Amino acid sequence: MIIVIRPHTPPEQVEEVIREVAQLGYTPNPIRGDFQTVVAAIGDETTHASLESLTALPQVERVLRVQKRYKLASRESRPEGTIVHAGGVEIGGRDFVVMAGPCSVESEEQLMATARAVKAAGAVILRGGAYKPRTSPYEFQGLGPEGLRLLADARRETGLGIVTEVLSERDVEFVAGTADILQIGARNAQNFQLLVACARSGKPVLLKRGMSMRIEEWLLAAEYLLAHGNPNVILCERGIRTFENYTRNTLDLAAVAIAKQETHLPVVVDPSQGCGRADLVKVLCRGAIAVGADGLIVEVHPNPAEALSDGQQQLDPPAFAALVADLEPYLQAGGRSLARQR
Amino acid sequence: MIIVIRPHTPPEQVEEVIREVAQLGYTPNPIRGDFQTVVAAIGDETTHASLESLTALPQVERVLRVQKRYKLASRESRPEGTIVHAGGVEIGGRDFVVMAGPCSVESEEQLMATARAVKAAGAVILRGGAYKPRTSPYEFQGLGPEGLRLLADARRETGLGIVTEVLSERDVEFVAGTADILQIGARNAQNFQLLVACARSGKPVLLKRGMSMRIEEWLLAAEYLLAHGNPNVILCERGIRTFENYTRNTLDLAAVAIAKQETHLPVVVDPSQGCGRADLVKVLCRGAIAVGADGLIVEVHPNPAEALSDGQQQLDPPAFAALVADLEPYLQAGGRSLARQR
Amino acid sequence: MIIVIRPHTPPEQVEEVIREVAQLGYTPNPIRGDFQTVVAAIGDETTHASLESLTALPQVERVLRVQKRYKLASRESRPEGTIVHAGGVEIGGRDFVVMAGPCSVESEEQLMATARAVKAAGAVILRGGAYKPRTSPYEFQGLGPEGLRLLADARRETGLGIVTEVLSERDVEFVAGTADILQIGARNAQNFQLLVACARSGKPVLLKRGMSMRIEEWLLAAEYLLAHGNPNVILCERGIRTFENYTRNTLDLAAVAIAKQETHLPVVVDPSQGCGRADLVKVLCRGAIAVGADGLIVEVHPNPAEALSDGQQQLDPPAFAALVADLEPYLQAGGRSLARQR
Amino acid sequence: MIIVIRPHTPPEQVEEVIREVAQLGYTPNPIRGDFQTVVAAIGDETTHASLESLTALPQVERVLRVQKRYKLASRESRPEGTIVHAGGVEIGGRDFVVMAGPCSVESEEQLMATARAVKAAGAVILRGGAYKPRTSPYEFQGLGPEGLRLLADARRETGLGIVTEVLSERDVEFVAGTADILQIGARNAQNFQLLVACARSGKPVLLKRGMSMRIEEWLLAAEYLLAHGNPNVILCERGIRTFENYTRNTLDLAAVAIAKQETHLPVVVDPSQGCGRADLVKVLCRGAIAVGADGLIVEVHPNPAEALSDGQQQLDPPAFAALVADLEPYLQAGGRSLARQR
Repeated sequence: MIIVIRPHTPPEQVEEVIREVAQLGYTPNPIRGDFQTVVAAIGDETTHASLESLTALPQVERVLRVQKRYKLASRESRPEGTIVHAGGVEIGGRDFVVMAGPCSVESEEQLMATARAVKAAGAVILRGGAYKPRTSPYEFQGLGPEGLRLLADARRETGLGIVTEVLSERDVEFVAGTADILQIGARNAQNFQLLVACARSGKPVLLKRGMSMRIEEWLLAAEYLLAHGNPNVILCERGIRTFENYTRNTLDLAAVAIAKQETHLPVVVDPSQGCGRADLVKVLCRGAIAVGADGLIVEVHPNPAEALSDGQQQLDPPAFAALVADLEPYLQAGGRSLARQR
Repeated sequence: MIIVIRPHTPPEQVEEVIREVAQLGYTPNPIRGDFQTVVAAIGDETTHASLESLTALPQVERVLRVQKRYKLASRESRPEGTIVHAGGVEIGGRDFVVMAGPCSVESEEQLMATARAVKAAGAVILRGGAYKPRTSPYEFQGLGPEGLRLLADARRETGLGIVTEVLSERDVEFVAGTADILQIGARNAQNFQLLVACARSGKPVLLKRGMSMRIEEWLLAAEYLLAHGNPNVILCERGIRTFENYTRNTLDLAAVAIAKQETHLPVVVDPSQGCGRADLVKVLCRGAIAVGADGLIVEVHPNPAEALSDGQQQLDPPAFAALVADLEPYLQAGGRSLARQR
Repeated sequence: MIIVIRPHTPPEQVEEVIREVAQLGYTPNPIRGDFQTVVAAIGDETTHASLESLTALPQVERVLRVQKRYKLASRESRPEGTIVHAGGVEIGGRDFVVMAGPCSVESEEQLMATARAVKAAGAVILRGGAYKPRTSPYEFQGLGPEGLRLLADARRETGLGIVTEVLSERDVEFVAGTADILQIGARNAQNFQLLVACARSGKPVLLKRGMSMRIEEWLLAAEYLLAHGNPNVILCERGIRTFENYTRNTLDLAAVAIAKQETHLPVVVDPSQGCGRADLVKVLCRGAIAVGADGLIVEVHPNPAEALSDGQQQLDPPAFAALVADLEPYLQAGGRSLARQR
Repeated sequence: MIIVIRPHTPPEQVEEVIREVAQLGYTPNPIRGDFQTVVAAIGDETTHASLESLTALPQVERVLRVQKRYKLASRESRPEGTIVHAGGVEIGGRDFVVMAGPCSVESEEQLMATARAVKAAGAVILRGGAYKPRTSPYEFQGLGPEGLRLLADARRETGLGIVTEVLSERDVEFVAGTADILQIGARNAQNFQLLVACARSGKPVLLKRGMSMRIEEWLLAAEYLLAHGNPNVILCERGIRTFENYTRNTLDLAAVAIAKQETHLPVVVDPSQGCGRADLVKVLCRGAIAVGADGLIVEVHPNPAEALSDGQQQLDPPAFAALVADLEPYLQAGGRSLARQR
């Protein structure tokens, strides 16, 4: 770390900083410039205490971190990349994985119709929320266990893998009994207790980026999963919150490229949440492929206008089939092909 | 709700929208302008399904909500305001409540020294984290149950009430065994399962605003607590995430005034998280009083430069004592006085 | 517009609103719901005064706009789309236009080397700043008139068209004497006097999106250009300011798709400003093509590490040549091909 | 500056960085840690070229600035603080200055009524826009020269000083012929040509913070004014753009305290733009005093509901008079009193 001392600080106060740096386990290395002094603190920033607390001293202007804060998630720790095996497919390899299904599981009829349609169109994993995090307590909260039962039925009939969100530590084991991939939603991306519980379940985890999470924080949330023993982590970019209001979120496609570069983990994109508008989903899927995503997770509903949640961003089955067909040339351009079920 | 139909939509497609509105339980009321038609949908927007899904129809340009989404939290539902009784003090009444203590409980010595100092300076509630949500898995995660035990000791000795964060649904009952007020942190402000569990504990809850939460969403999180049977909710503004980087967060003091106007709940301000810099805490406390806050929650540590978390924003005891003394004239200006322990 | 009246407003205060609506030139149309009344105001929202001022009345809760605020820029006003002819190429047609060159014009040698290299790689328009808007007054401010002279020389030698930024109304005519396309930068995107002056120059204008501009505001800035008689407007997405700090800006590729849908204007992408990092430029160019952009504007410098401005985001000539070669399959996927000089 | 080299970089590539640092005029000082090497570059960061371009080298991970970028604006350069004399009052001294008036000058009657009312209530400077920057070209653009004439008349009658916005370099001299203080609006805060022209006018300048300007950038814009010879700069915080939509902008009161600490310049607050809602203006004025502002600029209109611009945030004269009366105890709390005309 670099500790920047304020200009005109008397030498004895610089010495105080140097002593504190040593006290906190780093080797201090002062560099005296014409205007101000900086102290370079040599040591492993992840294992020692953070020196940011030193800004509590009046003579310290700022503390700058040098080292990356994630280790297990970093590309360096596994240069060849991670392939997650889930639901009969490989995520993070050469093949491009399409996950699709309704925002919420609403009924047997709705789920089965969607499952058959997305399978026919080329999806290999079925998404569907049984437990729904909703902004208002008066909105549909999901079917819960009944929703999971319907997802298991859909897998039995179609062979699709299942990805579904878990909201509560208490439900992790139960949801893991059905899901092939546990989804951690944007609102829970820094619910560290839930992260640890999901890590321990042994199931692959799809970790959405939080609404106001910097990339570094997102990768540190993945680090929680890895550090608690679960190597099967899939990152999911789903848009960040900005001032723009033509879209629900601002899909940050540069973050996909950065996550691929900084980590060894597969990265997928959720274009439905990413813009909150059905009419933009197709072009954002193309964009996701172009920046190097490993897959997509797309919301599909037999009748979006009557969906119990987020109808405005769900595609109907014909639009979804057209979307998947449309992706082919972009996949080819990137030297990839659609993952098929085995 | 107002459904805006695209210009040049043929009449039969307008009729389709009108039928859907009726189907979803609202009374449709079309208004035909020169350029475009809007359909006003009359009904209770909190109990009916949302019409936002109608934007899935190609002829629908936008859907605009009319009604407020919170009911129990709204000022209308309790115009006289709510006073929360906790830790021997009234929060939300005429008296202004100062809560203070370390970011994390680190040791008996650290906690007791802080507790005595903040009591002497005028605080009536002791804050201190036993369970800490940390961005990195390698950072200090709190003392856990031992931290709670130390907090209980501090209450026994000083008589201060205790506010402490709960991170996990599983811990709610256990933490509620010690805490006078359960704190829900910014990262968990939309962890709805934790909200429901805290509501059911029967303990007063201090609900921080999430980092990227709109005021409406914050009040809807409070609505979760109220709707699940807990009337003792204290709102806490702690800064939102913006592009500014001279401060850790941007403290939104207008939000305090809005929350006081829109709801009947007490509102306190956390200036320490709100700016992330010890040198600004005092003026932000003044600002909080000026905009009508009911109290403060301030981080204090015997030796901030060696704190195990967030030292840069913690005050030492003399600075805290000076801060409280400084507030007196601002409290008088607003016709309030410092809450004292009874 | 829709005027939302507060719940429990007495009838005579509703009447006051209705009278004001009529007074301001709209036909009022009150709709009385169970909870509250709304007044739909029928009329042309662009020619009448805005009704937003009515929220000054205490009984008015909110005013919601219904109509789009841009007319000439809207896709409806020219469904077939606009093709801008500039520098010997068509922008907005089937061909995809690559513009490239240094951030700043620094010297004859630097500019000529870059011009030759970008032409050889496939660019058809040369970019280069002669006047530079710099955050600090102590940074390099551009060569000014001498920079323009060098750009004219480069065009003479290479045949490339020239796009260059104009910072000052006073310079518009002078810069237009050299430029084939006038660039309005992000910091001046709501400098309406500059917009009007550029509109009057008769030259095609490349309008960058401001750092914190909503899409609606960007299109309204374009409306200024169109309304002042200049039909040759090219929109340029260059990233918006968010809390993320791994990138300099957050490139909003959804905005490209929206701008193509909402307007008839060509849209290009600046990936260099869009992320501020040379290592991401290539994938963002792919992404831009995938979402339907009509072209790119890319920063290239013979020796980025010694550039006088923004070296961190400039590519060297070999990297740029590799980038253009890489785009081919993505262009094919979208049914487009690289624009060539005629 | 600190240049962070990537881990595992071979020594000869570290040497390349060291050579470049020297080449660019700094003294390189390499510090070799266990994980990675950093090079501290000693020199004056404002006069040398920026080293940020070095991130163009593949072995450079990041470049961290150490020194502050503003010099003339820094508190250090004038520890006693600057008092700006304008319109017969001192801004930045012990007295607190209230500026008020309509958003736009609309007519003689409207302006004179407002001027008399704000004077009676305690304002000493009259604000009023003759040239209005409007998002849409179809909105009222101000009366122009006629508006200035009316402002001059109002000064003649009331003795109030005049602050009014200048939008165009071409108008600076003309506007300076009437104004006591030139206002540079948020949209032009990085229109550096306008800044330079205003600096040269010799008139005091009120510089609003741009909508997405970091504090550092705001102070660098002030540095432009100072570096071009104008010492009479007043900073004005007016809210920043965030995701929140209950308010038009998020008023950043911490920024006021920081600007007072970092610079020697007076700082005033615009609560009207800062929230965009008349009902919050009063409490935000209190907040502004509490955090140490030197004055206010408040929008007042005889009939806000029929204002030609921004009626929703303008106070009527009785509300403004009540507001000024309300401020007294907060001013006393801070040891200040209302500036009176001399």
